[in-house]
Amino acid sequence: MTASLLLKNVRPNAGAALDILIENGRIARMAKDIAAPAGVAVEDGRGEIVIPGLVEAHTHLDKSLWGQPWYVNEVGPKLLDKIDNERESKKRLDIEPARQSARQSIQSSLMGTTHIRSHVDVDTEHGLWGVEGVMKTRDDYRDIVDIELVAFPQSGLLRRPGTLELMDQAMKAGCEIVGGLDPCGIDRDPKGHLDAVFALCQTYGKPLDIHLHEPGEMGAFSTELIIERTRALGMQGKVTISHAFCLGSPDPALVDPLIAQLAGLDIAIMTTAPSRSAAPPVKKLVEAGVRVCSGSDGIRDTWGPYGNADMLERAMFVGLRNNFRRDDELRIALDVCTLGGAQVMEIADYGLAEGKAADFVILPGETLAEAVVTRSPKRRVVKRGKIVARDGVSVRTAP
Amino acid sequence: MTASLLLKNVRPNAGAALDILIENGRIARMAKDIAAPAGVAVEDGRGEIVIPGLVEAHTHLDKSLWGQPWYVNEVGPKLLDKIDNERESKKRLDIEPARQSARQSIQSSLMGTTHIRSHVDVDTEHGLWGVEGVMKTRDDYRDIVDIELVAFPQSGLLRRPGTLELMDQAMKAGCEIVGGLDPCGIDRDPKGHLDAVFALCQTYGKPLDIHLHEPGEMGAFSTELIIERTRALGMQGKVTISHAFCLGSPDPALVDPLIAQLAGLDIAIMTTAPSRSAAPPVKKLVEAGVRVCSGSDGIRDTWGPYGNADMLERAMFVGLRNNFRRDDELRIALDVCTLGGAQVMEIADYGLAEGKAADFVILPGETLAEAVVTRSPKRRVVKRGKIVARDGVSVRTAP
Ligand SMILES: [Zn+2]
Ligand SMILES: [Zn+2]
Repeated sequence: MTASLLLKNVRPNAGAALDILIENGRIARMAKDIAAPAGVAVEDGRGEIVIPGLVEAHTHLDKSLWGQPWYVNEVGPKLLDKIDNERESKKRLDIEPARQSARQSIQSSLMGTTHIRSHVDVDTEHGLWGVEGVMKTRDDYRDIVDIELVAFPQSGLLRRPGTLELMDQAMKAGCEIVGGLDPCGIDRDPKGHLDAVFALCQTYGKPLDIHLHEPGEMGAFSTELIIERTRALGMQGKVTISHAFCLGSPDPALVDPLIAQLAGLDIAIMTTAPSRSAAPPVKKLVEAGVRVCSGSDGIRDTWGPYGNADMLERAMFVGLRNNFRRDDELRIALDVCTLGGAQVMEIADYGLAEGKAADFVILPGETLAEAVVTRSPKRRVVKRGKIVARDGVSVRTAP
Repeated sequence: MTASLLLKNVRPNAGAALDILIENGRIARMAKDIAAPAGVAVEDGRGEIVIPGLVEAHTHLDKSLWGQPWYVNEVGPKLLDKIDNERESKKRLDIEPARQSARQSIQSSLMGTTHIRSHVDVDTEHGLWGVEGVMKTRDDYRDIVDIELVAFPQSGLLRRPGTLELMDQAMKAGCEIVGGLDPCGIDRDPKGHLDAVFALCQTYGKPLDIHLHEPGEMGAFSTELIIERTRALGMQGKVTISHAFCLGSPDPALVDPLIAQLAGLDIAIMTTAPSRSAAPPVKKLVEAGVRVCSGSDGIRDTWGPYGNADMLERAMFVGLRNNFRRDDELRIALDVCTLGGAQVMEIADYGLAEGKAADFVILPGETLAEAVVTRSPKRRVVKRGKIVARDGVSVRTAP
């Protein structure tokens, strides 16, 4: 193939202006004053910032209510209230995974996300309905976003017999990651739960990404069990702990030894930067060498009404949650929502460099910090070298 | 005066659709199928939601960098670092209070804010520069927003001699509220600081709104001193504590007696719903009968880069911070940013009812919860019966 697009006058990561030539869906050249090859489309970058594609490293594509009539939430306060309410109301509310994941994927893409890791419910009531739906979206919308699936035992793994067999089927069906959930809090059998999900990882040679909401000492205990298994099974670099509220404990005697071990075993942390609970200390983790990524988690679902799939807004949340005020700190927040996600998802051809995939976002702003706090809707999104969204309008139409 | 505007087909607080007739800047009638009086402009409400004007009950109009070149923040981590950095860089950065307050006021208005309480710095370096500037904006932009001023000793009251005299001059000049700041943490003389600010309140017959960032037991101690003085001076209903991080302490033995006394003395609480620190429990306060309001605090200033003056986004922050997921809870979050602010600012003619000032926002959404989480920019803002902003464009031009 030959050159397909020449992007003139953009500032990679808010640095000096240059041009980007795209060939075969990849960044072929980045330099000043590249002459347009014959017949190649030219896009005026207007001196705007270019950042690598935003990475939504934790969401639930199968369960969003995006585009449905407003769901009036009257759900009870406990975690199990939300789990049971959701499982029981999926069909009634017509939360069809293929359609809903397509809607959210388009919304994500037009906000600048180029890669998504989605946990997808696997349970005895709906079987692989979610997995099949999100896989359909992954295939149908490959032009605008890359999606990988985590087989996720949302309703518990051991407490609902038959779920483990379905998890096995989900991995056979092609899920890229094994999921897990609160081994103490939900399954109430941390050894049993963790042995089961790590066994799935071993069987299929796949990484683990486990939801861990457990706070304080309980969460620290579960984290230790995850650390022990990661070490024993040689799964360095292949485990992500999502949420990890326990790392937000104010007690350094609890947290610091955990962080040292996470760094040593290259276990990654995903945080949504929640304001309502303890949350992992992002700067401390990054400085310790831990890979940190972020995500929207559920977007407008039966769990809660929030979310717009904007990972630039999420970077702002990371900044606000961690009291980042300086420009160098806001850069960390943005990195978590770009490079950090790419590192966790092991995206080899990610980044603003020659030879990498042409997946990026063009957006206004003087500095990266300004781009984060302004969250301008005036974004141009490039995926595989093609412009797939402009100013909030996607090239794809939502079903 | 006669009727000036007929608004057809809107849903007050997302209820049943009706029409609103405006006369003399006030809501004259709210009913179904009001016939347009001759010569009266008619606005199609398109079945959208109407909410009363958003209330920005805590900001700093004099110090925003809005519209200036990007300020690269490299400030140190302590509160005094930020205070000293700001005072020393105001002139250098050309933070001209009249211009900057005008810019932020326009931004607030086009986001739907109809009333602003602004703390305004009073210090020995700049004297009443800020007060005079914000007063000019208050007068010049009266058509789009109501502004009241809090004389605010940002650099400390007693630690910088001459400040108290300037505070006295600020009140003489027409500030509506006496301000204060961390009586232990900054002035390091809680009795001295509080006696001085309460004395100003007594002298001028004005309310108090004091910044209290002090956490935990220290903040609780300062709160007790404020409670004692409120009771002794009969200032029930005339005191607001802004931030009150100490009320977010997890210890009910510390918090509950304070809340009971705040309710008993009708002392109001302002929270920005910060995600980085302890924060007052909004639902618990509201249920105890405490007036609760919210605000943006500083918007894009030398303290930090965040903020867009959107009090609908602030309502979302209140919801996120307090783990509000149910629709009835999101209503509380919105109320804090509308009615709660009006109660704290004692705006007598506020609300969606006949006879009240025609200050409101028309915005899309099926429910109030949807309006909050969506934060649509497609807003029409009505102030004193006139449409002052449409879809993010104000009738006024920023200087
Ligand atoms: Zn999740
Ligand atoms: Zn303030």
